[in-house]
Amino acid sequence: MQIAMIQDRILPLADVDPAHLDRGTYFGDGVYEVLRSYNGKIFALEEHLARFANSLSAIEITNVDIEQIRSRVLKAFEAAGIANARIYFHITRGSAPRSHTYSADLKPNFFLTINELPDDSRDKANGIAVSTHPDWRWKRCDIKSLNLLANVLARADAAKKGCNEAILVDEAGLITEGAGSAFFAIFAKTLQTAPLTANILPSITRSFVVKAAKNTNLKVVEKSVRVQRATSADELFIAVTTKDIVPVVKFDDKPIGNGTPGRYTKLLIQNFKTFT
Amino acid sequence: MQIAMIQDRILPLADVDPAHLDRGTYFGDGVYEVLRSYNGKIFALEEHLARFANSLSAIEITNVDIEQIRSRVLKAFEAAGIANARIYFHITRGSAPRSHTYSADLKPNFFLTINELPDDSRDKANGIAVSTHPDWRWKRCDIKSLNLLANVLARADAAKKGCNEAILVDEAGLITEGAGSAFFAIFAKTLQTAPLTANILPSITRSFVVKAAKNTNLKVVEKSVRVQRATSADELFIAVTTKDIVPVVKFDDKPIGNGTPGRYTKLLIQNFKTFT
Repeated sequence: MQIAMIQDRILPLADVDPAHLDRGTYFGDGVYEVLRSYNGKIFALEEHLARFANSLSAIEITNVDIEQIRSRVLKAFEAAGIANARIYFHITRGSAPRSHTYSADLKPNFFLTINELPDDSRDKANGIAVSTHPDWRWKRCDIKSLNLLANVLARADAAKKGCNEAILVDEAGLITEGAGSAFFAIFAKTLQTAPLTANILPSITRSFVVKAAKNTNLKVVEKSVRVQRATSADELFIAVTTKDIVPVVKFDDKPIGNGTPGRYTKLLIQNFKTFT
Repeated sequence: MQIAMIQDRILPLADVDPAHLDRGTYFGDGVYEVLRSYNGKIFALEEHLARFANSLSAIEITNVDIEQIRSRVLKAFEAAGIANARIYFHITRGSAPRSHTYSADLKPNFFLTINELPDDSRDKANGIAVSTHPDWRWKRCDIKSLNLLANVLARADAAKKGCNEAILVDEAGLITEGAGSAFFAIFAKTLQTAPLTANILPSITRSFVVKAAKNTNLKVVEKSVRVQRATSADELFIAVTTKDIVPVVKFDDKPIGNGTPGRYTKLLIQNFKTFT
């Protein structure tokens, strides 16, 4: 008899809740998005849905209706009634007994959660400390997939060092991005961030930061920052959906600039507000 | 209110089955093993448990008792009563609302399945076809983690090409291993396979293949095979727990040797039987 065991309980495989047979768990065979709302309005929903569609397509989950996803997100957001909400959702390829190969008729699993965003005003006002970690992620970080163990391990390492974010460094000594954020450096009047290659998530917030820089005299340069150069930057910051722009004031224990959020970073935070 | 949505159903987050909040699904934050039995006897249980302990330790899941895992595996195997069984199990860090960082007091989730192994005598007798795919996996493949999307995509690509396995090739043009197997090539009297680095799973079956080679006049060389050289090999084979040694007779549509399993591969299959 085919059986399963959940903790110490043995049961026939046929009686197992499909949640336990999710290819999301077996393989990380799924993709996700994180959205936020500002004062009751979801930010950049269309951009997130477009990226979600790209991620689904990249891993060949072809039987998902994006219109249905949009309506589910809106319905859940309304039900939650949270003004400043974090909305997480994923789709996995479906539930089936474990096998790398899959049947085309699997029914995708949709899962969403909504919770209130914690107050981040202190981090925004004071800046955060970050630490570096080798970028152990896979070679298709342009796909927003559930394969995030490298990110988890990097973030755990940062937490041990009292840091809020891990900045990932590739084998060539170049900064790719944060474990859960895009990374930016300002040298003189240049705003530098990694170009969008297969190693980089096409961050929605990143694209709005670039937009926010248009009303400044910063020149945007898409070129990876060499890790040794990072501490000589005038300013550093990360960008992430849930917090938009957060100043980085310490990098591997070294202060950035005078150790407080820089003036361009503060200006970009102001400019970002016009979008939300 | 914190809410969740499963397909079209909205419910309070507090009412969600913890299986939906598994860090295994959110992040692939877990590790696994696959065992098999031959005629009612589990093969290499201690070796698999030792590797499992290493994987757990590498991702800092520190609160798992390996003795308990052993007893669960034995109990489930007995309950299943399958002579030639495939035993899969994983541990994830636990269930919690999604956050990269985690609390040290999370309770790990254990999940196991047992099913009958399909008959593989035809593949063993005739050999299989394989195709190459870029190795997109993360940089810690020595950890047997649930981050397997790269493997899934490579295997899906192989299946489309009518092949049973995908052989992964790194950016330098070197073969690392199969999407779900170790890879071996025989050139004259040399048995060649990749050395055990962070890019390679320390395959238990691989170690038994090396042992099986001791009773032959093959010299074992741990050196990655350049993909261009693979088709000039006298013989190729893969090694995997569920099937031990399987001859490879076609590599990216080109026949290997005379297109049938080679004599050393057949000898190694024979020698392997003495272990089981």
